[in-house]
Amino acid sequence: MPGVLELLPAEQVTFRRMLETIRAAYERFGFVELETPAIELAEVLLTKTGGETEREVYFVQSTGAREQGLEPDLALRFDLTVPLARYVAQHEQQLAFPFRRYQIQRVYRGESPQRGRFREFYQCDIDVIGRDDLDLRYDAEMPAVIHRVFTDLEIGPFTIRLNNRRLMRGLLSSLGVGDPSHQSAVLREVDKLEKRGLDATATALVDVGMAPAAVDRLLETVSYRSSSLDDALETLDRLSAEFGDAAGGAADQATVLEAIAAFGVPEDAYALDLSIARGLDYYTGTVYETVLDDHPGIGSVCSGGRYDDLAGYYTSSKLPGVGISIGLTRLFYQLREAGIVGASPAVTQVLVTLMDPAGFAYALEVGRRLRQAGIPTETRPAPSRLGKQLKYADRLGIRFAVICGEDERSRDTVTVRDLRHGNQDEVPRSDLVRHLRTLIDQE
Amino acid sequence: MPGVLELLPAEQVTFRRMLETIRAAYERFGFVELETPAIELAEVLLTKTGGETEREVYFVQSTGAREQGLEPDLALRFDLTVPLARYVAQHEQQLAFPFRRYQIQRVYRGESPQRGRFREFYQCDIDVIGRDDLDLRYDAEMPAVIHRVFTDLEIGPFTIRLNNRRLMRGLLSSLGVGDPSHQSAVLREVDKLEKRGLDATATALVDVGMAPAAVDRLLETVSYRSSSLDDALETLDRLSAEFGDAAGGAADQATVLEAIAAFGVPEDAYALDLSIARGLDYYTGTVYETVLDDHPGIGSVCSGGRYDDLAGYYTSSKLPGVGISIGLTRLFYQLREAGIVGASPAVTQVLVTLMDPAGFAYALEVGRRLRQAGIPTETRPAPSRLGKQLKYADRLGIRFAVICGEDERSRDTVTVRDLRHGNQDEVPRSDLVRHLRTLIDQE
Repeated sequence: MPGVLELLPAEQVTFRRMLETIRAAYERFGFVELETPAIELAEVLLTKTGGETEREVYFVQSTGAREQGLEPDLALRFDLTVPLARYVAQHEQQLAFPFRRYQIQRVYRGESPQRGRFREFYQCDIDVIGRDDLDLRYDAEMPAVIHRVFTDLEIGPFTIRLNNRRLMRGLLSSLGVGDPSHQSAVLREVDKLEKRGLDATATALVDVGMAPAAVDRLLETVSYRSSSLDDALETLDRLSAEFGDAAGGAADQATVLEAIAAFGVPEDAYALDLSIARGLDYYTGTVYETVLDDHPGIGSVCSGGRYDDLAGYYTSSKLPGVGISIGLTRLFYQLREAGIVGASPAVTQVLVTLMDPAGFAYALEVGRRLRQAGIPTETRPAPSRLGKQLKYADRLGIRFAVICGEDERSRDTVTVRDLRHGNQDEVPRSDLVRHLRTLIDQE
Repeated sequence: MPGVLELLPAEQVTFRRMLETIRAAYERFGFVELETPAIELAEVLLTKTGGETEREVYFVQSTGAREQGLEPDLALRFDLTVPLARYVAQHEQQLAFPFRRYQIQRVYRGESPQRGRFREFYQCDIDVIGRDDLDLRYDAEMPAVIHRVFTDLEIGPFTIRLNNRRLMRGLLSSLGVGDPSHQSAVLREVDKLEKRGLDATATALVDVGMAPAAVDRLLETVSYRSSSLDDALETLDRLSAEFGDAAGGAADQATVLEAIAAFGVPEDAYALDLSIARGLDYYTGTVYETVLDDHPGIGSVCSGGRYDDLAGYYTSSKLPGVGISIGLTRLFYQLREAGIVGASPAVTQVLVTLMDPAGFAYALEVGRRLRQAGIPTETRPAPSRLGKQLKYADRLGIRFAVICGEDERSRDTVTVRDLRHGNQDEVPRSDLVRHLRTLIDQE
């Protein structure tokens, strides 16, 4: 099917490792797993969306319901945030707050397939949800998690870019753009600055009704990116002085930046970047984007922000939160295109070969021994040519072939062939596990 | 949404552990992971199905396609076998055979929701696919994997019941039921024997056109369950002698049973059970069911079998295979109903509490230290009452609370409270990781 990323086994090993790296980092920070169904009631999913988003929704209907001529009442989730909102509202009494959940599942969008856009893809999200309030310093934990994740993924240097929507709205207010919906329109244009450049953005800002002089000042201001924590804090002070209405937001952002340092995130891993606006009005405070320094063309690989109220459509409780999301399928695809990730050797470490039927029980016993020791092992219950079996192991990236021929059996030994290094040893059967462990640990 | 199983965080921990136990066992035997999209082209999914199954299919359509009045051309997979067939046919040239894949994903069925039947549920499958042929002894590997999985799941004693469709068809042929479709009809009734009992099954068999005398002999024969490997092999010999047409199938089954023993599966874990027929005509040789000895009412928790050709609809290559499937969502639900599984303590081991703002940096440093050591740790970036924080930790099943009060900070120590055992110790900050590791390892 077009618009999906389906992997060959050797790529799937890489994908799984990336996914488990993300999961491990999320769990390391004390986030708890949540899984929700892919299918939700359409009325639940569509509450807060409309227009453009609604066109991308996949509706779901069983054969029976179609035959009855009913309108579809089910749909596939298009993100993990709406299901989280529904879940928290539904189970509020059974949850402890702050509710810190991670969720790694596929989401679905009815897009026309095009290069790098997927109809079905993984998102890896964390959110911290407070009841009534959630301290600002929780916003500083997100960069700490992002830093852990992207360090562990080992896909090169990265920068976490931060900004603050409250700061931006204050700044716009001081520049004469006071109406919230006008501010939103301006921020949507600012968000495209990096992609479109200064000139096109200036034109667009005039088009949405900003005075040319204010446009110049705005673009000059938002072109700033901090070079250090001190530089960022000084800039925030300067903005407070220069744009009176921005003082509250600037103070918030300073608190968050100082807390990020306390979380132990190194200064070169993050920056205050006033051009980051995130198109969504959903975000009300801190916003995040993460870029790979050597591959800026990939765009943001981890984004998110602070929001005032998660689940206003589903509950009267006020549930502020902060979260981030990694679009893993797209990230994997882009990294593969860039040649940064690809096929991995098999998880299976050993193929126990079989050449003659008489060796069947001996070979299976060897396989059992290896599995008992925790070494992933494939056995061959039926004999075939050794060359064919070695070629198979090599093709899968299975490192070791164990040979239990007639000679080995008579001596109670096995021959271990290291397909990666091309050498082999005959070792006593009782010594096989120790021997393999040594070879594996040396790597 | 009705018809789905949505878990609270403490149950999700249990579910995840079960899923990862299954994955680990599959990988231990050298199966490689495959993931396919949930959405497939409807024409691909529906090739080999019809009637009853088709009614259970969920069709998928984007808003745009609906507005154009088109018929839906997409659907959600209802099992993992059809997508496997499509995948192997599509990628045949890039795969090495035997292709040994595991797949753990959700599948979708448009069922009317009822107790214990789900619209969206996990299946955990393995299959070995040969090209042109696949040795009979691969059928013996499945019980070895099942034995590993259900031993590791620690949900009580279980029995793997085996039978052979070729044997059964031979037996029916000798009883005068020679037409394959008549045989299929008979086997569908035999498959319900355990549920309906002898009398109702006898009536049903007469209804599908079997002679009453043959029905009696059939029911007498299929009521057999072996008490040991030798007992099973003797019975197979006897069946060969008594029912001439069953000799080939009986020999096959004897080969498989002997190979199971060579795989090291203990005799009390499996039995030849001639009442196991599996309704599906898809299966052509060995068939498997697995029951929990203390909970027979749950029915089969792991089923599968041998098939002649996986992907006849998608490729001209002959791809025989053998596989099993665990319906994990249903299994979890049933085990929870039976009180065998339930909530688990959090994966998070430590909550680093915060009572006064001045302790912020100290507490975060402690959290960082613990995470660096691989201990999942939640930190509090904002102060609150200690009692409230301990209650939160207790509710989540986080075992340790670390307290860094003013006194501790002045002495460069922390207080570790073990919420499970109710005791606490003050230890030097530099000794915290070692101290916790000792407590965790003692458990």
